[in-house]
Amino acid sequence: MKNPTIPNRLMLEEDMIPKQWYNIRADMKKKPAPIVMPQTGKPATQQDLEPVFCKELVKQELNNTDAFIDIPEEVYAYFKTFRPSPVVRAYRLEKALGTPAKIYYKFEGNNTSGSHKLNSAIAQAYYAKAQGLKGLTTETGAGQWGTALAMACAHFDLECHVYMVKASFEQKPYRREVMRTYGAQVTPSPSMTTSIGKAILEKHPGTGGSLGCAISEAVETAISNEGYRYSLGSVLNQVVLHQSIIGLESKAVMDAYDIVPDIIVGCAGGGSNLAGLIAPFVGETLRGERDYRLIAVEPASCPSMTRGEYRYDYSDTGNICPMVKMYTLGSHFIPSPDHAGGLRYHGMNPILSELYQDGILEARSYLQSEVFKAGQTFARVEGLLPAPESSHAILGAMAEALHCKETGEAKTILFGLTGTGYFDMKAYQKYNDGDIVDFVPSDEAIRQSLDRLPKIDL
Amino acid sequence: MKNPTIPNRLMLEEDMIPKQWYNIRADMKKKPAPIVMPQTGKPATQQDLEPVFCKELVKQELNNTDAFIDIPEEVYAYFKTFRPSPVVRAYRLEKALGTPAKIYYKFEGNNTSGSHKLNSAIAQAYYAKAQGLKGLTTETGAGQWGTALAMACAHFDLECHVYMVKASFEQKPYRREVMRTYGAQVTPSPSMTTSIGKAILEKHPGTGGSLGCAISEAVETAISNEGYRYSLGSVLNQVVLHQSIIGLESKAVMDAYDIVPDIIVGCAGGGSNLAGLIAPFVGETLRGERDYRLIAVEPASCPSMTRGEYRYDYSDTGNICPMVKMYTLGSHFIPSPDHAGGLRYHGMNPILSELYQDGILEARSYLQSEVFKAGQTFARVEGLLPAPESSHAILGAMAEALHCKETGEAKTILFGLTGTGYFDMKAYQKYNDGDIVDFVPSDEAIRQSLDRLPKIDL
Repeated sequence: MKNPTIPNRLMLEEDMIPKQWYNIRADMKKKPAPIVMPQTGKPATQQDLEPVFCKELVKQELNNTDAFIDIPEEVYAYFKTFRPSPVVRAYRLEKALGTPAKIYYKFEGNNTSGSHKLNSAIAQAYYAKAQGLKGLTTETGAGQWGTALAMACAHFDLECHVYMVKASFEQKPYRREVMRTYGAQVTPSPSMTTSIGKAILEKHPGTGGSLGCAISEAVETAISNEGYRYSLGSVLNQVVLHQSIIGLESKAVMDAYDIVPDIIVGCAGGGSNLAGLIAPFVGETLRGERDYRLIAVEPASCPSMTRGEYRYDYSDTGNICPMVKMYTLGSHFIPSPDHAGGLRYHGMNPILSELYQDGILEARSYLQSEVFKAGQTFARVEGLLPAPESSHAILGAMAEALHCKETGEAKTILFGLTGTGYFDMKAYQKYNDGDIVDFVPSDEAIRQSLDRLPKIDL
Repeated sequence: MKNPTIPNRLMLEEDMIPKQWYNIRADMKKKPAPIVMPQTGKPATQQDLEPVFCKELVKQELNNTDAFIDIPEEVYAYFKTFRPSPVVRAYRLEKALGTPAKIYYKFEGNNTSGSHKLNSAIAQAYYAKAQGLKGLTTETGAGQWGTALAMACAHFDLECHVYMVKASFEQKPYRREVMRTYGAQVTPSPSMTTSIGKAILEKHPGTGGSLGCAISEAVETAISNEGYRYSLGSVLNQVVLHQSIIGLESKAVMDAYDIVPDIIVGCAGGGSNLAGLIAPFVGETLRGERDYRLIAVEPASCPSMTRGEYRYDYSDTGNICPMVKMYTLGSHFIPSPDHAGGLRYHGMNPILSELYQDGILEARSYLQSEVFKAGQTFARVEGLLPAPESSHAILGAMAEALHCKETGEAKTILFGLTGTGYFDMKAYQKYNDGDIVDFVPSDEAIRQSLDRLPKIDL
């Protein structure tokens, strides 16, 4: 298949879907710092984490050594309902920009969850079923992850209890209905069903909730109900592992056509999609085989890498979850409610944090008005209406392509188009009406949030 | 490629996308009755129709003889952004039903319009651009067609003016925003921008509008504005021609794997998707080469084939559009507002009407509560959340598969999954809440609607 005519959509054959996940940590000389139990201040063990996560997922979370991990047969079979996903040549975008650059995007939105989240949801649900559990709890903000887990639980006949940030629950009724259609129980968070929820509601009766608070409620419910575990859709190393399928497929199909990206761009909230996309490429870099420019794009309103600190922090507001060394704005940081562009998590996955610290990964941030403009441009020229999250990566890729226009270089750019914007039309409506507001937190606000964190280092 | 391992998703190579549309009429011994001008009572000529439709599209509308028509290069290039679409083996649905039948579906929802409508929209926009027009007008009900035409017009840099049934405009703000994101002007219908709209608003000030009324407004706007033509997303023979790509791709990829469907099922509103899906298969039947069972599924609340009459009728409420001989409930028939399942047009495409009249096509109707239940089942087992329209075809295919379970026959069933339900979550919410109401019009209501039609036959 070397050097054939290159189609618009590069697709692997179904039997070429990778059969193993790739674990970046195995090739990192400097490993990410260990997860720490807030109760003891010591590195988390398998035993520590098993009450919260499925046994097999804890193993994956703590596995710093195995480079490849087999994808279970049942997960692989489900992959075939929505994978391989295409790598698409953005010919029309190139033309619109007048750039000599070649732009490709890996599109993960062709499934009902509307994003890459299903890659990890199906794996997590599988391990829960294999362990004989009754169900999973989780939180969701915009709703992509909740939808993905609801679909995965429906497939493996597991109960699914989703705590949905109350503001989203009310503003995104359609996401909620998708989850309900797949049989999930959806509770607005904070709720009266947990002690953490009750405490928050007593203190802030009218609150619209936050992701960190919904995480705390979901974890509490998992711990206090027999046969339940908690499931998280980003940030964790196990999720990065599952998302490596994105990069592995991209690399396999681009290799088949002899295409090598010079620059790889992804949006970064918790970081799982970006880490998954760059995984096999960064592996080459870590092994000294080839270098790439790797760029993380985050919103200016929640700039954990570009303006946060690399330090231990809680992963949830309730501070009951393990602590993670990561780039963070502080677990009490909540982005402005005016920020409609997603990627609202206060921290960044530890692997990406370490790669950024080590200079292997770059990061930049954009204002959301610029991001929506890029999304609209992309929609009009390429057809696909992107999620606001994905539009960060679009803008990052466009910026690189425009730079190529200046320098005359015909670089090859690959970016991750994580999902579609079909459930984000309220945000697009704001943009169409000229009502998008840019928000950039003050240094003071970030400082205050970080000063509330305990000082731990190992 | 004969007899290889059969993957879950059968995909043609990109360069195997058909390069010509197939025109069923060329192989029909008994042709559909001619379109008639309401002003003269005589068959419409090229000249009659050119003020309303693009020149080349009128040729296609009146072409009863050419079996194959070249797909323009620019249309073909755009196809590559979302075609070929897959034929998927519904292994999980088969297992859930416990049927020996083999179920396949042709999935047309993997594009931002969310349905097959883009197939014709891109062709119609192309011909408008080629003719040097400024823009197109159209109507939309649920919003799929309006979205598709907005996307197509954005691609060819044409203005796009969409009259959206007022009830939908208010209840489906997100569809409206998708169209606006692609630069379309969206007006709730009836509106004060046309004389027909004004007249209807004077008579029925609070009306939520209807598809027939929105058609009349769009046609009036096209006729009275220099450089504009009108565009329709179903019912017409030109649209059936464009949608033949669905069936041609299906047949090509199934042929490649030596799979022959025994039964082909599609939902039918105006009929374009069903006609497109069955096109090359019915061609074989018409040429005496092979027989298939072909089944149209319509909603019990708008049963044009199963309970209508085969006669001349207006295609719009304002009675300014050409008259068509078709199975119809009468152009004044409006389905109950309780009907959320789409497929609300009063008549059926003339080609399908003639095939039904000739016994080549079967038809049946289902209650919407059954349809939503089938849609939910499909979503849970196959992953994909279907449009309510598509769920009619799902239920039709499930019924045939369950019949196979009784008889023990391992028949091969192909059905058309026209689109996704992501913008139909209000209807799903009703279903999730147990609020779906079944509506079946009385014989008396249909009789009264039909008695208002003029009696014409040629």
